[in-house]
Amino acid sequence: MTAPGSGASGEDCLIARYFRPLAVDPGAFELGDDAAILKALGQDIVVTTDAIVEGVHFLSNDPPETIAQKALRVNLSDLAAKGATPAGFVLTLALRAADEAWLEPFARGLGADSSRFGCPLLGGDTVSTPGPVMISITAFGRVVPDKMVRRSGARPGDRVVVTGTIGDAALGLDILGGGRVAAALAGDAAAREMLVGRYRVPQPRNALVQAVRDHAHAAMDVSDGLAGDLAKLCAASGVSAVIDVPGIPLSAAAVAALKAGAVGMEALVSGGDDYEILCAIPEDGFEPFARAADVAGVAVSSIGTVIAAASAPKFLDAQGRDMPLPRLSYSHF
Amino acid sequence: MTAPGSGASGEDCLIARYFRPLAVDPGAFELGDDAAILKALGQDIVVTTDAIVEGVHFLSNDPPETIAQKALRVNLSDLAAKGATPAGFVLTLALRAADEAWLEPFARGLGADSSRFGCPLLGGDTVSTPGPVMISITAFGRVVPDKMVRRSGARPGDRVVVTGTIGDAALGLDILGGGRVAAALAGDAAAREMLVGRYRVPQPRNALVQAVRDHAHAAMDVSDGLAGDLAKLCAASGVSAVIDVPGIPLSAAAVAALKAGAVGMEALVSGGDDYEILCAIPEDGFEPFARAADVAGVAVSSIGTVIAAASAPKFLDAQGRDMPLPRLSYSHF
Repeated sequence: MTAPGSGASGEDCLIARYFRPLAVDPGAFELGDDAAILKALGQDIVVTTDAIVEGVHFLSNDPPETIAQKALRVNLSDLAAKGATPAGFVLTLALRAADEAWLEPFARGLGADSSRFGCPLLGGDTVSTPGPVMISITAFGRVVPDKMVRRSGARPGDRVVVTGTIGDAALGLDILGGGRVAAALAGDAAAREMLVGRYRVPQPRNALVQAVRDHAHAAMDVSDGLAGDLAKLCAASGVSAVIDVPGIPLSAAAVAALKAGAVGMEALVSGGDDYEILCAIPEDGFEPFARAADVAGVAVSSIGTVIAAASAPKFLDAQGRDMPLPRLSYSHF
Repeated sequence: MTAPGSGASGEDCLIARYFRPLAVDPGAFELGDDAAILKALGQDIVVTTDAIVEGVHFLSNDPPETIAQKALRVNLSDLAAKGATPAGFVLTLALRAADEAWLEPFARGLGADSSRFGCPLLGGDTVSTPGPVMISITAFGRVVPDKMVRRSGARPGDRVVVTGTIGDAALGLDILGGGRVAAALAGDAAAREMLVGRYRVPQPRNALVQAVRDHAHAAMDVSDGLAGDLAKLCAASGVSAVIDVPGIPLSAAAVAALKAGAVGMEALVSGGDDYEILCAIPEDGFEPFARAADVAGVAVSSIGTVIAAASAPKFLDAQGRDMPLPRLSYSHF
């Protein structure tokens, strides 16, 4: 992704017009070179990459602004969960055509979030494709050397903590597809809009970076479903967990959808796209963590306990019975 | 791209089997976390990203090994031109299906080049797509602080230098499409194979990294065609150039295709996919640069001179006449 010189093609001109304003970091050279420079500033560089594909992670008729926001935010969410402060990102954009009516709002949405989260564009590549639009972002963060929060540090006795609410994005996707949730919430436009918003525009918890770094033994973001992602965190840590299902935080809209029978709890805990932080916090760290979260304006909920076991995490209902989970999370293949 | 825990999906298992062996850097955590750590080791991190798309940058029936090699090498070529030593890469792989008969040789080709160029896999993402296969790689290099070789440093009087030979990959693509070059070289299987190889498997000039860093005022890799890329380098540097067309290095196969009238010189200098280094070397730096290149086993050719002008670079034939260039380079849109 390079801005035009006198050898400028149509591609170069589009890049200059829409993306150069986002390249505010000096290391991006205003997109005028083949590569960018990222200064580590004495820290570790944390690297994460996530792609979103039309028809898979977003819908063709989603607003371009929110597609851009989602593409960046799913990566910011990973940085947040790792305790890393955003440093920049590179973008690969595969498009069928250089449609300015799409590119302009896309770049506007991307630019707004790039500013909001302090994560400047460092470079990229645009390619043509006859297939679905695909946006691949690699994002960079900085963290104190050797202090990246891993998946693997959870210890027996830690609290299992999640931010925000779980399952909203899966409900939003159902609504966009005209599913049962849309019918159940037919009378509540605000609830439907909130859920669709949660699907389209994740709320990465970067405001919690410092608290995660200070207090979490282990953390990851919930992108493929709480149940599956918790299983991954436990496996990486060599532990298990017991989750109190009634303690899992739900939005009022999700509770309404549950009560109407439009969705089951197992679908909420295995639905994808939450982009909340799941972490293991030692008992004596929970209070300061919760206090820091309160200051940051992020809700956090203690939903269970890490235990010493090799078995899969258990999800127990109000009666203490195992909740059956036919699938743990979304899988691409 | 994370290896499986007990919440493993089919996607996770495929990643583990084929890609974990490539994640030899400790910062990759064996693909067992959400992000990787890249240590700057007191240097600047150079970041570049390039994607290749089925039907655009490679053909559906190209061998998976060479598709993987091309995906990595187009990025390694950028690092080489910037004077950066490879440090690692992340991979986004968009596939229609998890076809192991394709993934196995793809990962094998990727692994071989990852070892060969000292550029370990740090992480990635696999997504499903109904469209063409797309491989997006973001590669990282390290360079002495503030010593990345820019496009913008060329000065009047510098020699314009390229590595290797120009135009071979464009001829290889023509051969794969059964074009006029295929007919012209019908009797020379070795020449056809060499040209196809140049299209499928670029030869990034990472062996020249130190020489580029030591001697080049400006450099970039030739990916979209020599003429267009030279125009970009000149524009970034605020200079122009005069190129001696007969001095542009051609392979024997390209000379044969030219002589047979299957291709014109202007197509060779505007064809894409060369992945050679184009650089501006001060007169007194050329001899040590050429000596270092000789030691590295890379051919380099002085093809012209940087001049103080705002006009587009001129390509002069043996009679000193301007060569008309109907197009300078490949553009996606």
